[in-house]
Amino acid sequence: MALVSSLVAGEAISALMQRLGSAAKQSFHRLSSSPSALRNQALLRSAQLLREHAAELLQANERDMQEAEKKQLSPALLDRLKLDEKRVESMASGLEAIAELPDPLHRVLEIRHRPNGLVIEKVSVPLGVIGIIYESRPNVTADAAGLCLKSGNAVILRGGSESLHSSQAIVACLHQALEETGLPKDAVQLVPTRDREAVRQLLSLNEYIDVIIPRGGKSLTARVMQESRVPTLLHLDGNCHTYLHRDADPAMALSVVQNAKLRRTGICGATESLLVDREAARLLLPPIVATLIEKGCEIRGDEASRKLDSRIVPATEQDWETEYLDKIISLKLVENVQEAIAHINRYGSHHTDAIITENAQAAATFLNGVDSAIVMHNASTQFADGGEFGQGAEIGIATGRLHARGPVGAAELTTYKFIVRGTGQIRPA
Amino acid sequence: MALVSSLVAGEAISALMQRLGSAAKQSFHRLSSSPSALRNQALLRSAQLLREHAAELLQANERDMQEAEKKQLSPALLDRLKLDEKRVESMASGLEAIAELPDPLHRVLEIRHRPNGLVIEKVSVPLGVIGIIYESRPNVTADAAGLCLKSGNAVILRGGSESLHSSQAIVACLHQALEETGLPKDAVQLVPTRDREAVRQLLSLNEYIDVIIPRGGKSLTARVMQESRVPTLLHLDGNCHTYLHRDADPAMALSVVQNAKLRRTGICGATESLLVDREAARLLLPPIVATLIEKGCEIRGDEASRKLDSRIVPATEQDWETEYLDKIISLKLVENVQEAIAHINRYGSHHTDAIITENAQAAATFLNGVDSAIVMHNASTQFADGGEFGQGAEIGIATGRLHARGPVGAAELTTYKFIVRGTGQIRPA
Repeated sequence: MALVSSLVAGEAISALMQRLGSAAKQSFHRLSSSPSALRNQALLRSAQLLREHAAELLQANERDMQEAEKKQLSPALLDRLKLDEKRVESMASGLEAIAELPDPLHRVLEIRHRPNGLVIEKVSVPLGVIGIIYESRPNVTADAAGLCLKSGNAVILRGGSESLHSSQAIVACLHQALEETGLPKDAVQLVPTRDREAVRQLLSLNEYIDVIIPRGGKSLTARVMQESRVPTLLHLDGNCHTYLHRDADPAMALSVVQNAKLRRTGICGATESLLVDREAARLLLPPIVATLIEKGCEIRGDEASRKLDSRIVPATEQDWETEYLDKIISLKLVENVQEAIAHINRYGSHHTDAIITENAQAAATFLNGVDSAIVMHNASTQFADGGEFGQGAEIGIATGRLHARGPVGAAELTTYKFIVRGTGQIRPA
Repeated sequence: MALVSSLVAGEAISALMQRLGSAAKQSFHRLSSSPSALRNQALLRSAQLLREHAAELLQANERDMQEAEKKQLSPALLDRLKLDEKRVESMASGLEAIAELPDPLHRVLEIRHRPNGLVIEKVSVPLGVIGIIYESRPNVTADAAGLCLKSGNAVILRGGSESLHSSQAIVACLHQALEETGLPKDAVQLVPTRDREAVRQLLSLNEYIDVIIPRGGKSLTARVMQESRVPTLLHLDGNCHTYLHRDADPAMALSVVQNAKLRRTGICGATESLLVDREAARLLLPPIVATLIEKGCEIRGDEASRKLDSRIVPATEQDWETEYLDKIISLKLVENVQEAIAHINRYGSHHTDAIITENAQAAATFLNGVDSAIVMHNASTQFADGGEFGQGAEIGIATGRLHARGPVGAAELTTYKFIVRGTGQIRPA
């Protein structure tokens, strides 16, 4: 695939994107009516081909890495970009796991027998053409394409520009598998240019694209919300809270907070903010503060919490709404569950929030009152993950309210249609 | 409610809309955690109050009608605007029917027991604050507010400007019912100005509004798609097709086409286009053409169809994509079911399309291949209606692909959250 020069921007890229969109839409009609056995076969063959072409994949990735190092990307970004044999194997086995999932299409979600004899079935069907905009993470190229293929959707992938060679090598394997299986290869397309204008075009292609899924940081999401003419499934940040109610078990509180904050700090389900009932703070907090600080975690607390331990540094208003993705946690003492709920609904990102308590009434109030995609009782927010939820692979955790909330996997990439069967019924006047 | 002068547009209206949005959001949290018995009580009381205040409603409507007549609105629009005692009673009994519907909230949609002991429930919750933009039809004010209230959503209503007095009188009844029941009256708000700037503001209030539902003609929908910063549930036009396959039963074809086109021409489920297998046209069409023309329906056909009857006038390309909402139908002969599907997917509006045939294989191909919210076999497209589907009252028929497709009633105005219950589980590294 030739790179389109960014110098001839405007027109050339708009023509390119029109071509991609039109091809995707055409392939969608073939793909969506294909038997699921064929789509699974293409997934399994893709996995094989990724393994067979591992050397080429690593070579392409090496080119990306060299360019990225020249650009002095941060170690965290370089790590996400990097492929090695283990990661190639993980992409391949990921596709195999997707092939194993139950068919998300043709499920009869509801059936109604009407008094006039009409039989109305609500049946799952693919969403259509999906545009996915993501960071420079080659594994997302395989995962996202795999989930779309599984669910009968055509996909246009727009990965971060640093990963272009790696993604092209991965998509070449998928294309070969689609062709060998007799499925349209245009059902998986990669935007073959680094020009950011391509994103703008993607967001305006509502003639061809049915849904845009942005996966990335705040600036990407904000841009998509602002610009998109295509409906979106938003994945915002995960400013997750753990709230220690006065009736929390102290040992559980320590164990869960430590895991929720520190197991992996870079994932969206990591706890970023700790709320503690004022009346139990003296009992619950000291071992937690000691452990977190010992493990190198900075604690930014409100004034009341800082009286408990001088190592807690002052938090500002900004801290309450910050997703650190790092060894930092904000800390606030609250009066009761109502104040905790109000704080989370105000400053949180409607992703995942947990209460730790032995008090069933307080738990029920929290689970009902916190307006988030995932609410938890006595568990680590790090469980916010499609795999842990038993849904299989996921594209991300949706924090919007329309269509899907929480983990978005193959089933969430479907919509439905109503199939009405009659024997010549006409509607009375 | 004082009308805001349209002269001080800009700032004043933006401040007004901010106030409405903020009040709606606040009331949402109270409403969404209210018991369903209370919301049903408010609906029943609203129905009573509409009946008790019928005279005032008719008086307010009379003011609207006088102004509308001065503006020389079309008879069809005047008819939609008009209230009489029968229509007031119909609004009241509509609210009572909504109160009777099963509670769409707190439904456990799925439950998963994970190997680590976590129990994950997927539970229905309200969408949030819904903005509804509609035409000058006072009954929609009651229906839409009723469905939102039933499903725990706060609503900001923006009806057509000609219906402002009628809608204000209706909302006054709902407010009294909410207050008497102890529910927040800000959960139902009506934009108290005719200024179109209010719509622009509504579409940008993504801080407070979770979903916009436009109900109206093409220009409104196009504007909303172009401008909205808030996710939308689109109700586009209904360019519905009936396709007569070569194996159609001739008597059924005649009866269904006549009903699908003429029962009511002004509803979105009315058939606008008739496709007929070329090879069966001579058998199937003559009685249909004769009947339609006899009933005053104009038939605009392609060249091939016009050879069958000289009363068929020529169709242009534009006819294939036109929703007439009138006694006009377009007619095209096609080679087979594949051509019918391709035509519908290209020119249709993904609303409702039907095949008439005794051939099960052709029916299956059609039902699978036509990419519409509702597909029918041997039934009139006029059945495209929430009531006829057994869903109860509807806000409209969604033709988008995200979230809801087909009739949008109380259940479709919900989303879900995941409630995870544990006993202190932490996620392994």
